[in-house]
Amino acid sequence: MKGTIEFYYDYSSPYGYLGSERIEAIANKHDHKILWRPILLGAVFKVTKQTPLTYAPLKGDYSIMDFARSAREHKLNYKHPSHFPIGAVAASRATLWLREHDDAAVQAQTTAFVHAIFHAYFANDQDITDTAVLSTLAKSIGIDAQAMAAALAEPRVKDLLRHEVESAIEKGVFGSPMMMIGTEQFWGNDRLEQLDRWMATGGW
Amino acid sequence: MKGTIEFYYDYSSPYGYLGSERIEAIANKHDHKILWRPILLGAVFKVTKQTPLTYAPLKGDYSIMDFARSAREHKLNYKHPSHFPIGAVAASRATLWLREHDDAAVQAQTTAFVHAIFHAYFANDQDITDTAVLSTLAKSIGIDAQAMAAALAEPRVKDLLRHEVESAIEKGVFGSPMMMIGTEQFWGNDRLEQLDRWMATGGW
Repeated sequence: MKGTIEFYYDYSSPYGYLGSERIEAIANKHDHKILWRPILLGAVFKVTKQTPLTYAPLKGDYSIMDFARSAREHKLNYKHPSHFPIGAVAASRATLWLREHDDAAVQAQTTAFVHAIFHAYFANDQDITDTAVLSTLAKSIGIDAQAMAAALAEPRVKDLLRHEVESAIEKGVFGSPMMMIGTEQFWGNDRLEQLDRWMATGGW
Repeated sequence: MKGTIEFYYDYSSPYGYLGSERIEAIANKHDHKILWRPILLGAVFKVTKQTPLTYAPLKGDYSIMDFARSAREHKLNYKHPSHFPIGAVAASRATLWLREHDDAAVQAQTTAFVHAIFHAYFANDQDITDTAVLSTLAKSIGIDAQAMAAALAEPRVKDLLRHEVESAIEKGVFGSPMMMIGTEQFWGNDRLEQLDRWMATGGW
């Protein structure tokens, strides 16, 4: 592996979902691993004084159209969730707990879990704020769901997420997805091609 | 010509500038003409309750970095203006006045004027709110600068811009650049490649 793409995202972010489906091909192409970094845009928006994309007049309608159109272009399943946006606290904590226990070099189970959660929410309209839903997803990919459920209530695991969000804000992360290679930031599902060109050329 | 790409932009928008430099190649490739549609984001933001990109904590710093980085990628000159953002009322009125007088089929002078104004502001740090600067730019491409200066004060020309902005908002335009093909909208300089693919494939 030549390096790491840090992939910051919120489980409630449609562009985070679309980006999560496309980032692996880019990482593999350039022999990089992905570090999945779930954050909570709700906390970030308090700092940046932003609101969820879909709340803005005009921009909101465009966004909802564009989520589906961008998904169609990349042949990804997308169904705008009936409850949107959500606070994906439990899903994010579960991911960080798993990431810690996962093989650091491969992170295969974490990757599978990230995809399973995103699919559940954006393709199958499941309630990913429900820990029972998260447990079922965990089991389906061989994760110890009981250990996970217990971990969600641990102060140490709560701290993991708090630190992840604080550290993201300190690095200037303000949206989802945001990809970082070292200190270089690329924001948005529509910047994956630019990230790819950046990695291919070594930057400009 | 098979159709028209409506190109909505604000002269104070860095991504509007970058998009304006790249849209012609796409229009030519697909045998479309461009309709240059200057708007005022200040008026739009009152409806959408947005603020200029650079005003948001974190997002602002990223944007200023990204304007320059995106320009470098496409080998376009970019120097962040010392006065930014500005209200480009005069430049927008002048463009609409010219567009009305220009050969409707070709719009070559309007295109040259749009580029000249954007270059003046984003490459040469000139004050494009100054009508003397606009007159000099107009003269340099063979436009009757005296007629243009007189037109800027006409109620009819003021109305042209007011209607252009109102009509944009009615169509859901909320940012710069926004490209429209019929009712299909593409927002952002980073969506030009998607627009290109859309036109090449007939959509998806």
